[in-house]
Amino acid sequence: MKLTILFGGASFEHEISIVSAITLKEKLNGFDLNFIFCDQDHTFYSIDAKDMKAKTFSSAKHKKMPVLTLIKGGFSQKKMFSSKEHNSIVLNLIHGADGEDGTIAALLDFYSIKYIGPRVNASVFSYDKRYTKWFCEARGIKSVKYEMLSSDEQKDISIPYPIIIKPSRLGSSIGVSIVKDESQLDYALDTAYEFDKNIIVEPFIENVKEYNVAGFMANGEIHYSIVEEPQKNEFLDFEKKYMDFSRSSQVLKADISDELESKLKKSFSKIYKNMFEGALIRCDFFVVNNEVLLNEINPIPGSMANYLFEDFKGSLEKLSNSLPHSKRAKVNYDYIHSINSAKGK
Amino acid sequence: MKLTILFGGASFEHEISIVSAITLKEKLNGFDLNFIFCDQDHTFYSIDAKDMKAKTFSSAKHKKMPVLTLIKGGFSQKKMFSSKEHNSIVLNLIHGADGEDGTIAALLDFYSIKYIGPRVNASVFSYDKRYTKWFCEARGIKSVKYEMLSSDEQKDISIPYPIIIKPSRLGSSIGVSIVKDESQLDYALDTAYEFDKNIIVEPFIENVKEYNVAGFMANGEIHYSIVEEPQKNEFLDFEKKYMDFSRSSQVLKADISDELESKLKKSFSKIYKNMFEGALIRCDFFVVNNEVLLNEINPIPGSMANYLFEDFKGSLEKLSNSLPHSKRAKVNYDYIHSINSAKGK
Repeated sequence: MKLTILFGGASFEHEISIVSAITLKEKLNGFDLNFIFCDQDHTFYSIDAKDMKAKTFSSAKHKKMPVLTLIKGGFSQKKMFSSKEHNSIVLNLIHGADGEDGTIAALLDFYSIKYIGPRVNASVFSYDKRYTKWFCEARGIKSVKYEMLSSDEQKDISIPYPIIIKPSRLGSSIGVSIVKDESQLDYALDTAYEFDKNIIVEPFIENVKEYNVAGFMANGEIHYSIVEEPQKNEFLDFEKKYMDFSRSSQVLKADISDELESKLKKSFSKIYKNMFEGALIRCDFFVVNNEVLLNEINPIPGSMANYLFEDFKGSLEKLSNSLPHSKRAKVNYDYIHSINSAKGK
Repeated sequence: MKLTILFGGASFEHEISIVSAITLKEKLNGFDLNFIFCDQDHTFYSIDAKDMKAKTFSSAKHKKMPVLTLIKGGFSQKKMFSSKEHNSIVLNLIHGADGEDGTIAALLDFYSIKYIGPRVNASVFSYDKRYTKWFCEARGIKSVKYEMLSSDEQKDISIPYPIIIKPSRLGSSIGVSIVKDESQLDYALDTAYEFDKNIIVEPFIENVKEYNVAGFMANGEIHYSIVEEPQKNEFLDFEKKYMDFSRSSQVLKADISDELESKLKKSFSKIYKNMFEGALIRCDFFVVNNEVLLNEINPIPGSMANYLFEDFKGSLEKLSNSLPHSKRAKVNYDYIHSINSAKGK
């Protein structure tokens, strides 16, 4: 199968995206892969498979590689007297800003490029944690209770300690702190405000049971991964999560009852349907008092959560064959014609 | 002032956008204007001011005009041995799909082009009426009660007749019907489903008081237009609204109490703040039992609601000088460097 891995982006998770892409190169061994790197200035480069190493990017060697531009149906590389087109299906693997905020989705939609990844609406509802809460409320999906803070206004937090403080729009635990008492609050707020002017506060639930499920829609039904119980110590900090993005060995299925598994899948389906079509997403859930609560939606999970799928390659192929078509409005000039003829023009 | 009017788009409101652009050409007399047309195939053309007539587009004469491509900071026009750049501020005047659904916003953001218009999030929350309802609920903004229907599932409507049926994602009254009793229902549903698989049903409130207010944020405060009481017969159909898009003579202020005016402005502000910065929007309100209800947000109103502003040119200048900057994440390679040095590479 032909597939173009698009990675990088002007994002705090830029490095994570590089690690993800390198991991997928190994996991998708046998696929006919292209690699396109989006640098922090939004220039696209075609990267040869042999150069898919972290050092290529950290040493800026990528700047010597062929520049690509977006054209209808794909990316184009200018040659002396011709051009080469990359027009296979794109896997959007840009984590964080650009990739998960709807920008890349809109670009690919506009240029009629088929892609795996969340569409614009789905991106908006998963990238900013405020909007994920709105989405949950509207759809009746249970999640952890929360309060919002903004750098614009002074407001007290009414959730009792311990609490967890997160920038509204970042993943990978960047800027996140657990605050056990008031003495730690100011530092945690400052840290989070460095990344976002909006902050979300939630109760920190000690020893909460946590389960992750990934999945995607193909041929009208959701294909679920195994359910994983992630190991953790309090919560994964950036460095640990970073390592997590290069995971490639399959994990063991969580030892849970059929009832809980079906509850988790039901929640996943409620989140996915009529929103995330075209994407392979991972949902991270908490279970509190036998109730499933959504913690986070990862619309472009690290290394595509390959380690949760028994047949990862087969899964991507299935999804690729079932991508949504955007129905584009047909334009006509009936009204202009009718007005012109009324005017006798 | 230099300004680039971007219009057209692959949208059911394509023609309306052309009319809007022609109207603005007149209203912005004295500005240094460029016109860029996006055709239904997503090709950009540079249109000379003298060709800004409906016939240029309905007769496909635009296809002979210079093609533009997006580059960092603007649009580029290839010449024989050089290229010409259009890099003034863009006014996004594409109504409906492309312009109001977040696509154009994402494109302009990605290429670091400054623009007047809703950003991606604001587009998602105003383009699809379902998400506008979620937004209202989350922000405590009152709106008309509603039910959603989808072509996927059979569901009864519990709102008593008369009702109004609208496709979830179109403006300009396209596909909208008033249904007075059950005998008219099927036809109205079929009409709406032609345009969208999701439909919104609301009670039709006869002789409801309707008021429109436009405005924008500049220098940290909202600048409001006058409040208009639109004339109407039941509701504006497409043809009437179409004519409405070419309005250019200033309207009279609605004869309302100071109290109601301040209520309307307060609602506008609740909608606008922390969402629509960068855009000039028009909100259409109903007043029922002395309560202000949001009917619709127009994030790119027809001909920019010029007729509601006493000093329209001055308003656009103020807004242009106060456009939001998107803070782009600075990329560094600290983790890759630290991992490589730990590995001894």
